[in-house]
Amino acid sequence: MDNFTYQNATKVIFGKDTEKQVGEETSRYADRVLLHYGGGSIKKYGLYDKVVNSLKEAGVEIVELGGVQPNPRLKLVKEGIELCRKEGLGFILAVGGGSVIDSAKAIALGVPYDGDVWDFYTGKAEVKKALPLGVVLTIPAAGSETSPGSVITKEEGWYKRPVNHDLLRPQFAILNPEISFTLPDYQTACGTADIMAHVMERYFTNTANVDLTDRLCESTLKTMIKNVPIVLENPEDYDARAEIMWAGTVAHGGLLGTGREEDWASHDIEHELSGIYDIPHGAGLAVIFPAWMKYVYKHDLKRFAQFAVRVWNVEPDFNNLERTALAGIERLKEFFSSIGLPVTLGELDIPDDRLEEMAEKCTENGPVGNFVKLYKEDVLKIYKMAR
Amino acid sequence: MDNFTYQNATKVIFGKDTEKQVGEETSRYADRVLLHYGGGSIKKYGLYDKVVNSLKEAGVEIVELGGVQPNPRLKLVKEGIELCRKEGLGFILAVGGGSVIDSAKAIALGVPYDGDVWDFYTGKAEVKKALPLGVVLTIPAAGSETSPGSVITKEEGWYKRPVNHDLLRPQFAILNPEISFTLPDYQTACGTADIMAHVMERYFTNTANVDLTDRLCESTLKTMIKNVPIVLENPEDYDARAEIMWAGTVAHGGLLGTGREEDWASHDIEHELSGIYDIPHGAGLAVIFPAWMKYVYKHDLKRFAQFAVRVWNVEPDFNNLERTALAGIERLKEFFSSIGLPVTLGELDIPDDRLEEMAEKCTENGPVGNFVKLYKEDVLKIYKMAR
Repeated sequence: MDNFTYQNATKVIFGKDTEKQVGEETSRYADRVLLHYGGGSIKKYGLYDKVVNSLKEAGVEIVELGGVQPNPRLKLVKEGIELCRKEGLGFILAVGGGSVIDSAKAIALGVPYDGDVWDFYTGKAEVKKALPLGVVLTIPAAGSETSPGSVITKEEGWYKRPVNHDLLRPQFAILNPEISFTLPDYQTACGTADIMAHVMERYFTNTANVDLTDRLCESTLKTMIKNVPIVLENPEDYDARAEIMWAGTVAHGGLLGTGREEDWASHDIEHELSGIYDIPHGAGLAVIFPAWMKYVYKHDLKRFAQFAVRVWNVEPDFNNLERTALAGIERLKEFFSSIGLPVTLGELDIPDDRLEEMAEKCTENGPVGNFVKLYKEDVLKIYKMAR
Repeated sequence: MDNFTYQNATKVIFGKDTEKQVGEETSRYADRVLLHYGGGSIKKYGLYDKVVNSLKEAGVEIVELGGVQPNPRLKLVKEGIELCRKEGLGFILAVGGGSVIDSAKAIALGVPYDGDVWDFYTGKAEVKKALPLGVVLTIPAAGSETSPGSVITKEEGWYKRPVNHDLLRPQFAILNPEISFTLPDYQTACGTADIMAHVMERYFTNTANVDLTDRLCESTLKTMIKNVPIVLENPEDYDARAEIMWAGTVAHGGLLGTGREEDWASHDIEHELSGIYDIPHGAGLAVIFPAWMKYVYKHDLKRFAQFAVRVWNVEPDFNNLERTALAGIERLKEFFSSIGLPVTLGELDIPDDRLEEMAEKCTENGPVGNFVKLYKEDVLKIYKMAR
């Protein structure tokens, strides 16, 4: 096990009707805030009204900035920064999924920074300050509600890049699984791939002796494998929605990566897809992750065999661990298919003509991944395996 | 799953040589602190010098209060409160195991409170303020390094009582598994029973649909079951010590109880034993927990069968879940025995003559436990089953 520092101070308020607490929680930090959200769904299903009423009752005034798109854009972030400065706002309330939260985090970074907020995403600037923020979550997927990460897409060149810092963990995250009842099946499935990918990026590690975190990872994956089919059958199954929502937060809160080197190649490889083709990140991950696995599994057959046996209940073949390992990868792929996700670039209607360009962009700052370091040629092979 | 609020803001600094960071961490909060510790072991093995040097280098002055005993006493807590007041100290650094940390928490509660600090332990006073504190952990066991709990023993009448509040979570906890290399085997074993009990108090619940936390609990138990025999064989196995130390913190940090009713009857029943007979809390738990299980298992055979199958690899007998359930309880008992723990009151040299008195004291504020509510007669039967 490696040395580590871990602190996740976000206050999680979980369960039925918890969105009604948003006013009280927010009022601990500010009496005027930026209310940041996406498209129409929070208005359509009544969440917007509930949040606004709760804020009003707590005496919190709002300035609004809606319109966050999936794969959130730098342009809107910059609008948000200007708006906060102009209005003198010191707290951001994000109501939405990962895109809205990531956009809010980017605004939180940008307001107290003199330069271009994109500097944080290229590594040119180091995070030292950020406005505090709060979250009302609508989609279990990104884990951004307690994570230190934000991923933003810059329209010029369609670069999609992440930044991570503990100052970006929200002060509070309100999670009501009922809010996810109205998610379309495809969005539930994309969120599932994202959640499972967050676990798997941590699971495939070169760090030896990570028993507890291995098992915590496996627990989170098994919880998803059990509960996602239940909600696809019955979208209003509260308990299954609750398991998925809590698993999504636990998956990316940081505990599952303690004491181990993490990988993150598949995320980097996927970011080129969703950056350029504007597909859902989770759909891209469902395509890339199994291809990545098939490319790297020989690097640690025993770990892939453990994944197959413990997560997918594959019977271990001790005389042929490779067969065991491959069976696990196959089960993952079948699971993604069974919940309606694409598992090939073809199913995403992504043509072959820009694979090389994406492989180039993905590795322009050096190789990606830690489990196996992947250079341009490796990434290109993975894209080709994913066709 | 039940609604819940969860926040564990303690910063965990984990790994080799991390005690050298104590000065830097402490200096963020205060430049004069109470250094609180137990007996001679931190001096004998050099930890005391390392801590004092690190504090000195960071410009932190110390006022010392050593002498915390296992089952920490109210008398020393009151000394600590007076000392902090007299010296004007606003931060407590606990260097030790659960007893030292719990004693430090009690001092932290008492300093800003006008009345008798014991009021918090009887429920007479509500926690509203506490001094901040930091921890350098020496024994993986109590989980107090990030938990909101403190358990203190009042000498008059030998009452051992707990208090829980988020304000009692330490600001930081430094965990170096190497520090646990020198623990005697029996202390390692007692810590193991405590850690496993913290998980099992949460596992046995009446809350339905708690998939994720069930599995997280099972993961933590399996990690203990695997690694404890390794360190008893080789006390300096860093990786196994690290798994145990991190499991001990995770077990009691709160995540494993999210969304579920917890039990805690076994802790209450045990506190009478260690309160009166001054035995190690973990040894008492190793005796009480299997007896409690045998008394209550019929309340939820399916849950006990799941425990047997998933934690202890018992082959499920679907035609006889009772046999499956009992096999799990038996394995737990065998495991405790195999690591050198007592599993009967007789092995602890505890006679029969005060069982009734203990059952009376244990339930004087009403029944204990939530999985099954236990009245005086039930508790007495459990003590008798534990003979």
